[in-house]
Amino acid sequence: MITGKNYIGNQLSATGDKIFKTFNPLLNIENDWDITEASKNEVNQAVQLASEAFKTYSKISGARKATFLREIANEIEALGDALLQVYSSESGLPNGRAMGERGRTLGQLRAFANHVEEGNWVDASIDTAQPEREPIPKVDLRKMNIALGPVVVFGASNFPLAFSTAGGDTAAALAAGCPVIVKSHPMHAGTGEMVASAVIKAAEKTGMPNGVFSNLNSSGIEVGQTLVQHPKVKAVGFTGSIKGGRALYDLAAKRDEPIPVFAEMGSINPVVLLPKALNNRADAIAKTYAGSITLGSGQFCTNPGLIIGIKSQGLTRFVNTLAEDIVKIEPSCMLHPNIAGAYETNKENALAQSGLKVLAGYENSVEPNYARQVVTTVEGDTFLNNPTLHHEVFGPFSLVVQCENKAQLESIISKLEGQLTGTIISDENEISEYSNVVNTLQNRVGRIIFNGVPTGVEVCPSMQHGGPYPASTDSRFTAVGVDSIKRWVRPFSYQDWPNELLPDELKNENPLGISRLVNNVKTTAKI
Amino acid sequence: MITGKNYIGNQLSATGDKIFKTFNPLLNIENDWDITEASKNEVNQAVQLASEAFKTYSKISGARKATFLREIANEIEALGDALLQVYSSESGLPNGRAMGERGRTLGQLRAFANHVEEGNWVDASIDTAQPEREPIPKVDLRKMNIALGPVVVFGASNFPLAFSTAGGDTAAALAAGCPVIVKSHPMHAGTGEMVASAVIKAAEKTGMPNGVFSNLNSSGIEVGQTLVQHPKVKAVGFTGSIKGGRALYDLAAKRDEPIPVFAEMGSINPVVLLPKALNNRADAIAKTYAGSITLGSGQFCTNPGLIIGIKSQGLTRFVNTLAEDIVKIEPSCMLHPNIAGAYETNKENALAQSGLKVLAGYENSVEPNYARQVVTTVEGDTFLNNPTLHHEVFGPFSLVVQCENKAQLESIISKLEGQLTGTIISDENEISEYSNVVNTLQNRVGRIIFNGVPTGVEVCPSMQHGGPYPASTDSRFTAVGVDSIKRWVRPFSYQDWPNELLPDELKNENPLGISRLVNNVKTTAKI
Repeated sequence: MITGKNYIGNQLSATGDKIFKTFNPLLNIENDWDITEASKNEVNQAVQLASEAFKTYSKISGARKATFLREIANEIEALGDALLQVYSSESGLPNGRAMGERGRTLGQLRAFANHVEEGNWVDASIDTAQPEREPIPKVDLRKMNIALGPVVVFGASNFPLAFSTAGGDTAAALAAGCPVIVKSHPMHAGTGEMVASAVIKAAEKTGMPNGVFSNLNSSGIEVGQTLVQHPKVKAVGFTGSIKGGRALYDLAAKRDEPIPVFAEMGSINPVVLLPKALNNRADAIAKTYAGSITLGSGQFCTNPGLIIGIKSQGLTRFVNTLAEDIVKIEPSCMLHPNIAGAYETNKENALAQSGLKVLAGYENSVEPNYARQVVTTVEGDTFLNNPTLHHEVFGPFSLVVQCENKAQLESIISKLEGQLTGTIISDENEISEYSNVVNTLQNRVGRIIFNGVPTGVEVCPSMQHGGPYPASTDSRFTAVGVDSIKRWVRPFSYQDWPNELLPDELKNENPLGISRLVNNVKTTAKI
Repeated sequence: MITGKNYIGNQLSATGDKIFKTFNPLLNIENDWDITEASKNEVNQAVQLASEAFKTYSKISGARKATFLREIANEIEALGDALLQVYSSESGLPNGRAMGERGRTLGQLRAFANHVEEGNWVDASIDTAQPEREPIPKVDLRKMNIALGPVVVFGASNFPLAFSTAGGDTAAALAAGCPVIVKSHPMHAGTGEMVASAVIKAAEKTGMPNGVFSNLNSSGIEVGQTLVQHPKVKAVGFTGSIKGGRALYDLAAKRDEPIPVFAEMGSINPVVLLPKALNNRADAIAKTYAGSITLGSGQFCTNPGLIIGIKSQGLTRFVNTLAEDIVKIEPSCMLHPNIAGAYETNKENALAQSGLKVLAGYENSVEPNYARQVVTTVEGDTFLNNPTLHHEVFGPFSLVVQCENKAQLESIISKLEGQLTGTIISDENEISEYSNVVNTLQNRVGRIIFNGVPTGVEVCPSMQHGGPYPASTDSRFTAVGVDSIKRWVRPFSYQDWPNELLPDELKNENPLGISRLVNNVKTTAKI
């Protein structure tokens, strides 16, 4: 079922000589199938095909793109349990998670189908001519969003379906009218190939141009580097580490023609515990956070890696309950031995920092590649003075900072780097006494949460997933939700263009019936 | 009237020891007033003040920002003729242009005032909670655009009012809720100080925080570099050369925390002349273009520097009429001896290219700093093989490329770099035979024009001013029109946030009465 080949457009191809295997972390053995890394020639072919496909694909109707996106979802569903099995054998993630993530992936594809079928997303705007205007006549101007060009999507290690081959970035780019070249994640290349086969089938069934989608395998960094530097690639989507995302951003910025890289990277997702909330319900909060810290072995971008409170009996109770509860949770398998290994290294590096104390850690022996959760604590001034403690430890690890007072809490928040999320745990009326903390936190995050946990990223129009650097490379965009389409489009104006040659979105008759800004008034009316 | 000092917030300051003068190119003498370059300390003070001001200014209402923006317009008007005189003495531009550009500047400020007063620009989006949803409850999410942080604006040499101190970039950033630090253009620092005094007066009258605006003088590159590298600066706006814009982009990309630089840079604004149009009205087209090429001494970003046609009797007639007409136009003064000097150098460099022929040039002697227009011609294959001919010659210079056939025309278009505009001169029904040309051109420009000239950038919602690199550093944004506010904002989500603590834009009651996306439906209704 898995050939290990690359999809160069609709052709399976494996002309390269670099072979690798994926790994089953649960069984701690390599998976059977061989994967062939894309050769430089295959990379160039894929980009060339994408560039050709762009000429037609960028112009097809929203209705046809919707048909394509829905067919991708159907074809992924048609892969059935076989996909879920490969998914689990390449990630160690349980069947329930596989089903949930597949559901999310299908939901994203269908949400984008609805979005482009409805069509308002192009932000059509029309200013009609005023030939009699003095001193100079006013021209007719009509603007809408158009596709940027071929987009490269890097698969994410921690979301083999929802942020990889046909995940959020791909769905958004295809919806925008951009062909996609996926740099498949080496840890789940088999899953990637299966999903890619579904995309290719859907493209063929719905008459999309060859090259609208390619899927390239790679075990190292060369394929990705070649893609990002290719002159015909016009944008990049990435989900992963700060180091990886920054390297791609730097490569793209150094091109003769720099291109946008939207990288969703690291975050420690600070959680601020306010005193009254701690006083009234420290135990309940601690139990909730024990669950959030260990969810999915702590392998979510929104994992709460930093919890901050002011010293009090309440905070002590929180710390004690967290310590008690976290060790009751059964450890789970991480995605790959390399990720489990990095967790161990980063954890040990953190634990070696002066002043860091272990509150509790799971101490029983575990199977290979399982992550043993640890919660730690540190004084406020120690945290302030040691930048190493601000780094993400990817996995079920969290640090509780115990501040001396409100001023120190404010100072810590003001020195945090950019984050995907910030959370305030507060009793009613309490938060108004901490408006400085809230305001400062807001300037460092993309989403702020009241009395909740940062894990669980709802896919809906009002979600912002992205934040000030290094949470992402451009805080002006989101990686989740239909607005993520904005990463892959640019506004384009037609001046005095003949009505019959305008795209349907901008024609006088408004044949698509979309909402448009006409002479500064929103309307679905004809002109 | 002109002190030559910097505005560090509302304080005039001149602690530096670098003094320079502006230049009157018409009289070919230095202007009287001394300008003091901002010291490193003053730069840091301005950024620090902006960063403090951001805490409150980013949160004030659209109505209050509108009052501020309108008051800036009023205070600029109140400067009266004195401003226009300084403008002309620092730019050589005539009084009519000064009045026109002032009108445009006031219009921009007032358009942004209306835009933020109306309030829909924040793109408010609300997804209400579904506590009973299975398998997990849906949280309440509310999203809107918020200000990025302090913005640095570089004054443009060619628009001392409309794209400098209180020009489009500044108006957009202030409207967004971002404090602005202007790096004043050295060629019109006196004009800049006068406008800055108007902004400061307006800020004081309308109760804006000190630091919401600063104006820094500089004659070299150090002030700009320090600003772009300052950790508290969060975005940059620039209008000018590719070299200058790219240098700032590179600096910003290399920061520990990279920040967005929106640079609107060079463009040769290709114009394609189709055969039937040439056959029917070559003379009229030539006369129109003689005017467009020489408008404002060719110192507009949208100056048509490249005209492309297929060899024919019509093209020959166009070329001959253009040659006849262009020399009838009286040369005018350029902005500065340096710009006039660069024009001469670049022109001579172009003329030295093998195969380039001069069609016509103004040959009479002119006053110092006046630009003598030149139109040139070249064969299609010569143009294709010499990248130097693709470079902008800033000034009244244009190159007519005479192609052998349609295929060569297509080939030339496909090899052009990114441009602000592209123009098609066509007879009715003719353009449909050139859909490849049109499609290829569209992929290289931000605005496409039918039977017009690229000069004349209407300020309206449907204008796109910005295009693929190197026309601008990020084609996903415009530098002109109210949508240019999007450069300075980021989406921000509130999750389960208490209604009374939400910004007005997202409260259940919708107190501002703005249009919002509520559970996927656009409405002004309450929740």
